[in-house]
Amino acid sequence: MAVYTDVSAEQLAEFLAGYGIGELLSYKGIAEGVENSNYLLHTSRGYFFLTLYEKRVAAGDLPFFLGLMAHLASHGITCPQPVVNRNGAALGQLAGRPAAIIDFLEGVWPRRPSAAHCAAVGEALAKMHLAGADFTMTRANALSVAGWRPLFDQAAARADSVQDGLRALLAAELDHLQAHWPASLPRGVIHADLFPDNALFLGEKLSGLIDFYFACNDMLAYDVAICLNAWCFESDHAFNVTKARAFLNAYGRVRSLSEAERDALPLLARGAAIRFLLTRLVDWLNVPPGALVKPKDPLEYVRKLRFHQGVASIRDYGIDAEGFAA
Amino acid sequence: MAVYTDVSAEQLAEFLAGYGIGELLSYKGIAEGVENSNYLLHTSRGYFFLTLYEKRVAAGDLPFFLGLMAHLASHGITCPQPVVNRNGAALGQLAGRPAAIIDFLEGVWPRRPSAAHCAAVGEALAKMHLAGADFTMTRANALSVAGWRPLFDQAAARADSVQDGLRALLAAELDHLQAHWPASLPRGVIHADLFPDNALFLGEKLSGLIDFYFACNDMLAYDVAICLNAWCFESDHAFNVTKARAFLNAYGRVRSLSEAERDALPLLARGAAIRFLLTRLVDWLNVPPGALVKPKDPLEYVRKLRFHQGVASIRDYGIDAEGFAA
Repeated sequence: MAVYTDVSAEQLAEFLAGYGIGELLSYKGIAEGVENSNYLLHTSRGYFFLTLYEKRVAAGDLPFFLGLMAHLASHGITCPQPVVNRNGAALGQLAGRPAAIIDFLEGVWPRRPSAAHCAAVGEALAKMHLAGADFTMTRANALSVAGWRPLFDQAAARADSVQDGLRALLAAELDHLQAHWPASLPRGVIHADLFPDNALFLGEKLSGLIDFYFACNDMLAYDVAICLNAWCFESDHAFNVTKARAFLNAYGRVRSLSEAERDALPLLARGAAIRFLLTRLVDWLNVPPGALVKPKDPLEYVRKLRFHQGVASIRDYGIDAEGFAA
Repeated sequence: MAVYTDVSAEQLAEFLAGYGIGELLSYKGIAEGVENSNYLLHTSRGYFFLTLYEKRVAAGDLPFFLGLMAHLASHGITCPQPVVNRNGAALGQLAGRPAAIIDFLEGVWPRRPSAAHCAAVGEALAKMHLAGADFTMTRANALSVAGWRPLFDQAAARADSVQDGLRALLAAELDHLQAHWPASLPRGVIHADLFPDNALFLGEKLSGLIDFYFACNDMLAYDVAICLNAWCFESDHAFNVTKARAFLNAYGRVRSLSEAERDALPLLARGAAIRFLLTRLVDWLNVPPGALVKPKDPLEYVRKLRFHQGVASIRDYGIDAEGFAA
């Protein structure tokens, strides 16, 4: 929630002169996105998003993110599509920041996802994984298993101030994950942050996937595991097997999970839980006093981690060993 | 800059069912307004603003603000117009807050106002003053001369930490203003906060006045004085007599300032400077450490105050004693 960079109407009009999207009628800073400054533009040609990339996003990664959105959109995935300027470039410069204009997608994100929402996301994720197969750019996942230890090191000394025993829990889990993390599962472009606030719906129909700024190359099944955590737990942190079954079945109808992927799912889900637990914990411990933005609760992910630690087989996620509904 | 209250798509759809403005297509939290939570809605009927009134706005004042906007809009002033629900009410309840839907106005606010912008604002302000004459509701100005002493008392002990000698300057100025504040100038409904970010333009044509949440009954010429401070100083805090002349002449063509109002203008401008100096000073001294919102610089208004203290006559504002351009 933030607009970090103020853009004057005069600056913006000059920037828009480089695009073929009409005259500026109005623009409003949008209170979403903690990494970037976002504006909703209205021009004589329609509505658009303007994003100014702040320093938390590496400028070198922007061609990957924008190229991926353009690639996916051209392969039938509904996602925001970058608008190219009169020089054919998707990336420009505004108010001293890298800046891009992207399509405005209709839709609202579901605060209380239903099984139907979960199924729609499963289908869309699988289609995205297939569509990404011939995308030629690559970006390493800085927040995969090799990235977790440094986050743990930042948080370890104060972890027990958040929950008694948390440091030991994290240390043991990291050891386990580093020893057992799979190396040979199918890889490709993953979204890596497909939470409910990054999936837009009109009713129960998915109208688009957004926010590709964590996208990277990693195991496709790891993306599935992230979604299990993000979509299939209730607000009381109980796992909802009906939603998991709906999600996994819909995914599987588009792209079948291999036996190795299915077997690895509990472990991948533990890894996905640790990844968000650690980044939230670091944010939690480093929030400035009086800050308006309330950090997300890391302990939600402790409960999710404990659930997956107790999972015996993929049947606990609602599908059988062959990948069919169980 | 904030969205304080998160509204779910489900809550919002239920709220919109009480209005005749179509189905919800999307909504975005807007990063403007420090008093309220604002969303831009897109429905199948068009674009609208949704405002949730947070606790800094007294709920008892809302009928005045919304009634004033409706009154002014029906008298030809371009300003946001409240949308009434199926029960004929402009004010509803959403997420536990009083809430209203208002028209969306096109336009952008000028970061570097020109003399033409100042003239357009002068004309609009005068028209608003005339249109307000038969508005029957009233609201006292809590931030007029009687409200300044309590603000000073909050800030006095630490005022010199912001600028050496500031406490003595404020004390002497308050004494002077309380002794000389006019009592018999023409009164009516004033905007009381008509800064550049509350005036929308398409090019140099004014497309609307917004943010009536400080509107109240007070001396009309005090509103003029607020605008002199808000529009007619350069970013280096030098007074721009060309802009003042443009503003006052345009105002005077619609509503003539009386001789008594013209004579009082330097004093009213000192009062208007003190009013914003004091609220900014209190905010400045009470900003939580690490807050994302940077408070506005109170010292800008020290320089404006000093300018008006040195003004000998209305000729220094670019018009002669009869109110004509000088």
